[in-house]
Amino acid sequence: MGPHPAVAAIRLAVRRVLHDVITDHTTGHATGDEPLVLVACSGGADSMALASALAFEARKLPVRAGGITVDHGLQDGSETRAAEVAGRMTALGLTPSEAVAVTVGREGGPEAAARDARYAALDAAAERHGATAVLLGHTRDDQAETVLLGLARGSGIRSLSGMAAVSGTSGRYRRPFLQLDRQTVRKACIAQELAVWDDPHNSDPAYTRSRLRHEGLPALEKALGKGVVEALARTAQLSRDDADALDTWAADAETAVRDEAGALECAKLFGLPPAVRRRVLRRAVIAEGAPAGSLFARHIEEVDRLITGWRGQGAINLPGRVEARRQGGRLVIRQG
Amino acid sequence: MGPHPAVAAIRLAVRRVLHDVITDHTTGHATGDEPLVLVACSGGADSMALASALAFEARKLPVRAGGITVDHGLQDGSETRAAEVAGRMTALGLTPSEAVAVTVGREGGPEAAARDARYAALDAAAERHGATAVLLGHTRDDQAETVLLGLARGSGIRSLSGMAAVSGTSGRYRRPFLQLDRQTVRKACIAQELAVWDDPHNSDPAYTRSRLRHEGLPALEKALGKGVVEALARTAQLSRDDADALDTWAADAETAVRDEAGALECAKLFGLPPAVRRRVLRRAVIAEGAPAGSLFARHIEEVDRLITGWRGQGAINLPGRVEARRQGGRLVIRQG
Repeated sequence: MGPHPAVAAIRLAVRRVLHDVITDHTTGHATGDEPLVLVACSGGADSMALASALAFEARKLPVRAGGITVDHGLQDGSETRAAEVAGRMTALGLTPSEAVAVTVGREGGPEAAARDARYAALDAAAERHGATAVLLGHTRDDQAETVLLGLARGSGIRSLSGMAAVSGTSGRYRRPFLQLDRQTVRKACIAQELAVWDDPHNSDPAYTRSRLRHEGLPALEKALGKGVVEALARTAQLSRDDADALDTWAADAETAVRDEAGALECAKLFGLPPAVRRRVLRRAVIAEGAPAGSLFARHIEEVDRLITGWRGQGAINLPGRVEARRQGGRLVIRQG
Repeated sequence: MGPHPAVAAIRLAVRRVLHDVITDHTTGHATGDEPLVLVACSGGADSMALASALAFEARKLPVRAGGITVDHGLQDGSETRAAEVAGRMTALGLTPSEAVAVTVGREGGPEAAARDARYAALDAAAERHGATAVLLGHTRDDQAETVLLGLARGSGIRSLSGMAAVSGTSGRYRRPFLQLDRQTVRKACIAQELAVWDDPHNSDPAYTRSRLRHEGLPALEKALGKGVVEALARTAQLSRDDADALDTWAADAETAVRDEAGALECAKLFGLPPAVRRRVLRRAVIAEGAPAGSLFARHIEEVDRLITGWRGQGAINLPGRVEARRQGGRLVIRQG
């Protein structure tokens, strides 16, 4: 008798990613040492399922498997819990199995600050252990939430593209469960009798993602039907491919619209499709020193009007003391 | 004393569109006859506000203004009500002012069938009266709902691009309120003491859009904050521009990837960004007779694997008896 279908599903998802990791590793390393794959594990159901599947599959493949749990220090007893999670990973056969404590700052709000601290710790652990990959337990449901969070920013299709299956420095982070629904992953925990820990933050309505998960998405599903999560995840993939293609086009176009001296020619910019022109302008403004995070669609629209709605307007002030003006048929972008 | 700010806002929005209509009309017609602009009016708050602003602005401009109301025949007394709405438009000074009865079919569900019947009647009325433009009362809130409905299809950024400010045969339909929020438009009705009619369908939970309006969107706003409607409307505009640019690219690429005999070369297709390649494949399959409405992302993905995951697989069967196969480095798409 084979494993429970949910367990089979999570193992298959991990196996596929491990095959990719091994192939990439072999290509890059002639030495034949086995790559180390770490799982980032909070002790919650999704990442415990991931840890269990990694431990199971790694035994059959030329790969070493370990685990890291991050103690954010935000709740009483978090240190004890982190040690407990590390112990559970050891019990699964993961070596090294480590708890790492971090200090969460305040920048960008509580969720962003915790995320930044967590990834910094995971990056450091990966470096320290020489890990080839770090697996993350995000599911299709997490992806759907991320798309809605991006939608709320209203800043275009890049923010709709959610989380990538492969991301980070040289593709370090991998998300094997991105196409699996949360319910399957949870079932796999139950079927394997894995002890899991429910982070109270996940149901704390003070957190945007938690409100989205417990109120926003269920209401949307009630209005639009059960396929919403899948549709959002599919939107992420399609948006990501579209955004990548348009970025490629903009990079090519940016070269083509410059004159011999490297100045942007307004007539050539005018000839581009609006979506491409705005990306070219955004690239040019960032290249002159405007911080990407402070540059909003309305800034770029104003610069765009120097091209499409020229009526002699003056210089446009942009974040990072960058200034854009039209001068003799050229667009001059400069830091003041 | 000027008009109420909400009244000023709806009039400004209509004035801008009328200027565009007059400019386009003058360019196309040397005769100097005044263009006729019709408002499509259900008698609800949004379109009654639109009718009032059209009547007011048209008096000051070289344009004739009329109105059409469509009787869908779906509720008891709809004929009486339509006559009443026509009377209200006449009282505003709109000539012609007309009620048109339609028969709503069943194709595509109740909402789609009603919409199809309505636009067919509006098209016919525009032709009959020689109207240059038909104004529609969709607001930014309607746009946000449309984006969410598109999101639920999960079929990519074209379905996120909502309603266009200008659409239909030679840009007949115009939506002056697409950037105004529903609340402003409703305030303009109250400020002008316009009698309006609340369509019970708008609050009937049997309709997807109604559920979205009264439950889905409010829950999303509660989770994500009040800016959601604006963010969704901005997403629509950005997605539309992006989708247009990628369609242009795909049209160019389709020519470039064909050999001298017109066959699609697999090696050249392989070199395209995935987002562009999938659009090229979609265009090619539709050109061979597959009905666009039955062609889903999964069909195109399967055809795409003939290019990106070639392992000798057989012909792919597509809607409309179209078949795609790989043969000697060429992709052959043909109706059987």
